[in-house]
Amino acid sequence: MNALPKHVLNGYRVLDMTHVLAGPTATRLMAEMGAEVIKVEFPPLGDVSRGLPGHRNGRSAYYVQQNRGKYSLCLNVKAPEGKAIIRDLIARADVFIENFAPGVIGRLGFSWDEVRTINPNIVMCSISAFGQQGQLSALPGFDYIAQAYSGIMGMIGEPDGPPSFPMAGIGDVMTGVHAAAAIGFALLHRERGGEGQYLDISLLDAYTHCHELNIQYYSMTDGAVEPTRSGHHHFAVCPLGLFEARDGYVCIIALQPQWPAVCRAIGRPELAEDPRYDTNEKRVGAAEEVIGIVQSWVDAQASAGAVIAALERERVPCAPVLKISEVANHPHMRARGTVRAVHDEKLGEVLMPGMPLHFSGFEHNQPLSAAALGEHNAFVLGELLGYDAARISALGTEGVLFENPET
Amino acid sequence: MNALPKHVLNGYRVLDMTHVLAGPTATRLMAEMGAEVIKVEFPPLGDVSRGLPGHRNGRSAYYVQQNRGKYSLCLNVKAPEGKAIIRDLIARADVFIENFAPGVIGRLGFSWDEVRTINPNIVMCSISAFGQQGQLSALPGFDYIAQAYSGIMGMIGEPDGPPSFPMAGIGDVMTGVHAAAAIGFALLHRERGGEGQYLDISLLDAYTHCHELNIQYYSMTDGAVEPTRSGHHHFAVCPLGLFEARDGYVCIIALQPQWPAVCRAIGRPELAEDPRYDTNEKRVGAAEEVIGIVQSWVDAQASAGAVIAALERERVPCAPVLKISEVANHPHMRARGTVRAVHDEKLGEVLMPGMPLHFSGFEHNQPLSAAALGEHNAFVLGELLGYDAARISALGTEGVLFENPET
Repeated sequence: MNALPKHVLNGYRVLDMTHVLAGPTATRLMAEMGAEVIKVEFPPLGDVSRGLPGHRNGRSAYYVQQNRGKYSLCLNVKAPEGKAIIRDLIARADVFIENFAPGVIGRLGFSWDEVRTINPNIVMCSISAFGQQGQLSALPGFDYIAQAYSGIMGMIGEPDGPPSFPMAGIGDVMTGVHAAAAIGFALLHRERGGEGQYLDISLLDAYTHCHELNIQYYSMTDGAVEPTRSGHHHFAVCPLGLFEARDGYVCIIALQPQWPAVCRAIGRPELAEDPRYDTNEKRVGAAEEVIGIVQSWVDAQASAGAVIAALERERVPCAPVLKISEVANHPHMRARGTVRAVHDEKLGEVLMPGMPLHFSGFEHNQPLSAAALGEHNAFVLGELLGYDAARISALGTEGVLFENPET
Repeated sequence: MNALPKHVLNGYRVLDMTHVLAGPTATRLMAEMGAEVIKVEFPPLGDVSRGLPGHRNGRSAYYVQQNRGKYSLCLNVKAPEGKAIIRDLIARADVFIENFAPGVIGRLGFSWDEVRTINPNIVMCSISAFGQQGQLSALPGFDYIAQAYSGIMGMIGEPDGPPSFPMAGIGDVMTGVHAAAAIGFALLHRERGGEGQYLDISLLDAYTHCHELNIQYYSMTDGAVEPTRSGHHHFAVCPLGLFEARDGYVCIIALQPQWPAVCRAIGRPELAEDPRYDTNEKRVGAAEEVIGIVQSWVDAQASAGAVIAALERERVPCAPVLKISEVANHPHMRARGTVRAVHDEKLGEVLMPGMPLHFSGFEHNQPLSAAALGEHNAFVLGELLGYDAARISALGTEGVLFENPET
């Protein structure tokens, strides 16, 4: 059995009926903060993410990354005995979280109205693509679907080509963080004498939240300006963009105070005073020229590293666009635990992103184990709910409980 | 004076020395949850974001979006009297948050060691691009710099072209949410008898957190597979990507269960059984053909709306890639409050993203006002710190306090 890490959520119990990514992100953070997370999975395969790559010895690294530190309870939630177990857990949990399509949890018998009747102090959180109500709420809940509707997807890509989308689950992960934040504040409210409540978290809200400028600027100009994507150079700041060195791309950012430093770095100090380029507005107006001047200098450098070194000497904000291998093996990322080696009994050592929250009062990146499907059936029903061994055994025989140690 | 909204953080005081985006995002969420947020700004211009567009009547909508519901205290933090005021506030605050470059807050006299001496129960949070220590920590803290180092930027864009970056502050906003979450859990810990602590939150961690697959898959294959960007079609699922209709792009997603539905929607039901395309693996192998088949059908439709309607009839996950104007005016977004009209005394009505967290126990999207620079100097010093009027007036005369009602 996992020992729960000593951390801020010790003593809190989370009933976790989430799958794949946004929900499991929220409960993963809570598990890393010491909560007792009971992950409910369904026979015969459990969380869909158990089928996602990479695999070794029957185990999915995708699953492991999202579910370390959680107990796995695998049951048939459509059987009356399965529902009874869920009700017993709701009665004893502090948090109940799910990310089914809106309506499903109610049809299973666990809508907020039903849940609050069982346990008025519980914090229930539903995560969906578009929220629990409204005309879009019935749409399928994939990250990219919400990204497209939020306007974020349309803000990515070259201006004269199609939009582009990140090959990473940014929206799901970010929404999971939003959910974890909401749950934390709702628990804080409860700890100070408040009641439980229901949290309705969506990918659409989380993505739209990221428009720090676009929506208000469109609105402030009464629609005269509609911000849109501008590829690998910013439409409103110049130079701010990606330049191609011989062995990779470099991101260079020069707000007004950095322009003279760029001019020095590229060996053209006289340009700092050149009246054609001495304000950001003028540089944006002559963006093609300015970008061309910087790119010509980059072309003459031996490598992206040489470009970075020259720019950093003049304190110009810049960065190499790292590949995954470079991120995974970067000394800073490894030293900070931004990327960490996780040991799993079936996978061995695997690199994964670290716990993103650093607390001075607790150890960072604590060791935790992921579970085989249904590995904690007996523990959850026996130790937590007090069912006797014969009853647990019967539930197994009847097919209400399920387990697969080969996962 | 703002009435604080009735919400989960009533009774908590936040000393906010953040600027522009990631830090103000965290404290904005806290202000919307009813915390008393005292935003410290510096003369003569205050938060840099007061200079960011759009502007009307001297006020920045960028500033308003991030700072509604906060008190503005404008003082010279380098003057001894300014430092004394900050110390007095630290002594009376529950949370202290800053997002200067690492090292700056210490040189101002407010490192965690100094802060905890003044108030051992305070939760202090620092936000930076790369964390407070380590070889990258001295690099400038722009969103895109951290995005490039995290490997996320390299995962966006066409495979044979440069990377692309979103024209939205996704990393800053997301990091602000990470910070708010950490603060909430640290307050919860304190509420249960724990001490204050220090939180070290970074854009690098938040961005890297979003690699749900890339790092582990690179690691699981011992470097044989290095995930990289694949433009507007996914490299591992087909069809999953963007298709160009006559008046806009449509995102279409078909995992294995949806492939027959796609075939029906495009009027080619026989393709569902076609042995060339009957598994995702085969479709990925023949991606150009499969994408071509779907695109030909899209070409024949009258509009993106017609494409969506036909796909939705067969329950194929799909979405229009909305423009900002379409997001801003979308009935679902408006009804849910994902986009809301904010009333500001100088801006009038402006559309902005809504509060992304929905709590059943409290009103969503509560009315709050943004402050002119230094508008709450007298309130903060008089009402909260108990300074008498003569002392406050003298601090103004000496230039320790500053205000500009024209902001």
